[in-house]
Amino acid sequence: MDDLQLVKKYQKEIILLKRAEALLAWDQRTYMPSKGISGRAEQISFLEGLVHEMTVNNKLYSALKRLKKRKNIFGDDKIMINKLLKYVSKKRRLPKEFIEKLTKTTSLAESAWIEARKKNNFKIFEPHLKKIVELKKQQARYIHLKGHPYNSLLDEFEEGMTVEKLKPVFRKLKNDLLNLISNIKKSKEYKNQKQVILKKNFPRDVQMDFVRDVIKRMGLEEDNSRIDFSEHPFTTDIDLKDVRMTTNIRKYPLFSFVASMHEAGHGLYMLGYPEKHKYDLLGDASSIGMHESQSRFWELMIGSGKPFWKFYFPKFNEKYHLNTNFDRFYKEINFITPSKIRISSNEIYYNLHILLRFEFEIGLIEGTIKVKDLHRLWNQKMREYIGIAPKNDVEGVLQDIQWSMGYFGYFPTYTLGTIYAAQLYAAMKKLMPSIEKDISKGDFKRIRKWLKENIHQQGARMLTDDIIKKVCGKGLNPDSFINYLNDKYSKIYKF
Amino acid sequence: MDDLQLVKKYQKEIILLKRAEALLAWDQRTYMPSKGISGRAEQISFLEGLVHEMTVNNKLYSALKRLKKRKNIFGDDKIMINKLLKYVSKKRRLPKEFIEKLTKTTSLAESAWIEARKKNNFKIFEPHLKKIVELKKQQARYIHLKGHPYNSLLDEFEEGMTVEKLKPVFRKLKNDLLNLISNIKKSKEYKNQKQVILKKNFPRDVQMDFVRDVIKRMGLEEDNSRIDFSEHPFTTDIDLKDVRMTTNIRKYPLFSFVASMHEAGHGLYMLGYPEKHKYDLLGDASSIGMHESQSRFWELMIGSGKPFWKFYFPKFNEKYHLNTNFDRFYKEINFITPSKIRISSNEIYYNLHILLRFEFEIGLIEGTIKVKDLHRLWNQKMREYIGIAPKNDVEGVLQDIQWSMGYFGYFPTYTLGTIYAAQLYAAMKKLMPSIEKDISKGDFKRIRKWLKENIHQQGARMLTDDIIKKVCGKGLNPDSFINYLNDKYSKIYKF
Repeated sequence: MDDLQLVKKYQKEIILLKRAEALLAWDQRTYMPSKGISGRAEQISFLEGLVHEMTVNNKLYSALKRLKKRKNIFGDDKIMINKLLKYVSKKRRLPKEFIEKLTKTTSLAESAWIEARKKNNFKIFEPHLKKIVELKKQQARYIHLKGHPYNSLLDEFEEGMTVEKLKPVFRKLKNDLLNLISNIKKSKEYKNQKQVILKKNFPRDVQMDFVRDVIKRMGLEEDNSRIDFSEHPFTTDIDLKDVRMTTNIRKYPLFSFVASMHEAGHGLYMLGYPEKHKYDLLGDASSIGMHESQSRFWELMIGSGKPFWKFYFPKFNEKYHLNTNFDRFYKEINFITPSKIRISSNEIYYNLHILLRFEFEIGLIEGTIKVKDLHRLWNQKMREYIGIAPKNDVEGVLQDIQWSMGYFGYFPTYTLGTIYAAQLYAAMKKLMPSIEKDISKGDFKRIRKWLKENIHQQGARMLTDDIIKKVCGKGLNPDSFINYLNDKYSKIYKF
Repeated sequence: MDDLQLVKKYQKEIILLKRAEALLAWDQRTYMPSKGISGRAEQISFLEGLVHEMTVNNKLYSALKRLKKRKNIFGDDKIMINKLLKYVSKKRRLPKEFIEKLTKTTSLAESAWIEARKKNNFKIFEPHLKKIVELKKQQARYIHLKGHPYNSLLDEFEEGMTVEKLKPVFRKLKNDLLNLISNIKKSKEYKNQKQVILKKNFPRDVQMDFVRDVIKRMGLEEDNSRIDFSEHPFTTDIDLKDVRMTTNIRKYPLFSFVASMHEAGHGLYMLGYPEKHKYDLLGDASSIGMHESQSRFWELMIGSGKPFWKFYFPKFNEKYHLNTNFDRFYKEINFITPSKIRISSNEIYYNLHILLRFEFEIGLIEGTIKVKDLHRLWNQKMREYIGIAPKNDVEGVLQDIQWSMGYFGYFPTYTLGTIYAAQLYAAMKKLMPSIEKDISKGDFKRIRKWLKENIHQQGARMLTDDIIKKVCGKGLNPDSFINYLNDKYSKIYKF
């Protein structure tokens, strides 16, 4: 077998194992009987170990290094080799003992986090978080990318993105969002807003009918995808032609609908990866941020917009017996209210929650913020960003699971995704000025085609920021998002 | 790591991989979107390859050989080492090229079988079957167990069982079954029997309510098992505490109920394997025949019996509005009619179908029967065994998938299971004379406990026949089954 064949064989085998692992994880959250959990944990961790062994395998590494020097390799093969070598080298920098320690620490930390939430007491989680932060600093030293130490963690989720690039973007975003909120809060509309329609109960089966209707319109088909229930909605790909989404019914009666559009955005991306790369790392998302851009695009730019609800409002009004008019409904689903909880926040406050976490993560990794001060600082920063402070740990520093899992560098991708989504929407509207007409007829064919050709089919051949630059004319830039928000909310709140 | 640790580690890893594979297979038949099939085939065959590699690994083999010679190993460890060494040695006798050839041949043969059924033409399948028979002969030569060459194939499914032991048992069974049928056919009851009640449609949701009710009574709980739908009902274990059963709704309105009891019998066995062997080969069924004994026990000895229906008939009568009496219902569910199709046959004719297939398999492997004569011989033998001949290939020689999959030596386990089930039922009744009272109250606790202690908890520590001997006083013996049938049907048909 020549080196290129060997590299492709390894990648295919790694991907096949990962897909088996993905199914184990999907099943765990959807259909697994509860007592299966301890066996499931062993199954998943064994497969993960195999994947890691294969990734850092010496034969693979040597083949990649030889291939990198070869002159007669071009196109996607060249891109694949460079990308894989970078990935493998990074993984090889982490000693086996370090990975085992990290896995063990986060596993204990996750249990401690659950316990701490039950008892509403950060102190229970604090020593675990301290250990995790130390390990993450250590990880950053092992990986050792250029610039800020946090870059080495961020790169895991958002390849090519750096603190140096993010900081000015996030600084501008923070100012603009706070300005917008200040304008909203001064408006008469804001002072009089009162939730009525969305306090009703919507029947479960009707909710699911609408879920199935909207994801079918978005382009998900029964022969290549499914939607099930799980505690937290998520999407995973078991194969290029087999994507699994989940949703849930919650108190907020639009939750199932909105969450399903979000997940279906992820799902469409996965179904659109380039077929010829289905067994190598180019047949994947360019980054987590890009993934999030696809879900946010459908959830926010499409799913909270006026044209979209022009189509769906009459159906909702009829099936749920709302007895209301379009304007009241559209306003109510877009009401802006501050929330202490990130995941309950709307598209404005949500990003402020992220910026706050980004600031903490940077501080923790730099060492300028100590874990023991987090509790105090959380409340202080919440007032600065959101204007309200949590009453207790559960609605404060204990609200997110990510840190207990060791996911440092993940939070920024949520806001990156939102910014990219707005950039894509602006580019799309410029190119297809009549697209809102399609949307208001429930016709998403042109959108789907455009996203597939410009984003999905690229796979991971380019970095996210380069894809965005190519498609939108500019790389990461918050202006489109700010314009989108100002335009939308100045109309809703009349300022 | 010492040899024993190494052997245990290998087994655990092999079992973890097999369980991931089991979930992939379960998902394929229950929830997978149809286009996922080609990816799924690759995932499963890759994991299967890994399992095979690990099983025939030299390090494992050497460790086992050294351990076998050690004097200071006792109890279950000794049993496990002997059993695993036997298993590994058998697998190592099959060259890699042979396995690849067999896999490829059966994969093509299965498609050809489907095609042949569509066109109702054995000729399409014939050349494939010929190749499979040659490979199976070759396999028997590689494995090379004592006695009849078929023993090497049978042993794969029913360890320790041989043609020499089976032939006299099956000969007696054939005579006794044909005698019984002759008595039934001469009876007045037989001549007047007419299906009425079971031609009705039973509502789907009521069927599923009864399914859930009966498997819960049998002892399957929601926290360690589930039941879903699939084309053909099956059961698989993903973990000692996670068993998956499936059922289906068919035209015959009791199908879902009866099939679910059958599958739940398998499920209870799997949930009862000894916990301390959950990651070695002793935590498994002692054989396929023993597995089938557990399903047949519940399906036939319990689920088609008078005491059982004393409990369920009133509920069925009410919920399905049958407007009938117990005697008519009980008779009708036990009507004996010959069928050309194995899987549509009742407990008497079913075994004649198996004996016929056993005779063919022996002949094909010995070389006394040629594949090209199979078509002609099938019709001839059907008249001898069942009294009717198929009109075409689909209801004749093409009815079963097993041969296309290369499963030679599998069919006998169906009848072995039935014989063992009857032996177990007889032993149980002797030990607990009032057990029918429990059954007629829908109370299966004592039965479940007895099966768990005597069969399930044994795992694969002993051969099936030895377990049966220990529990029932005798090894494989068809008398209990014949007595059970004679007793039951002489009452139904009044002879």
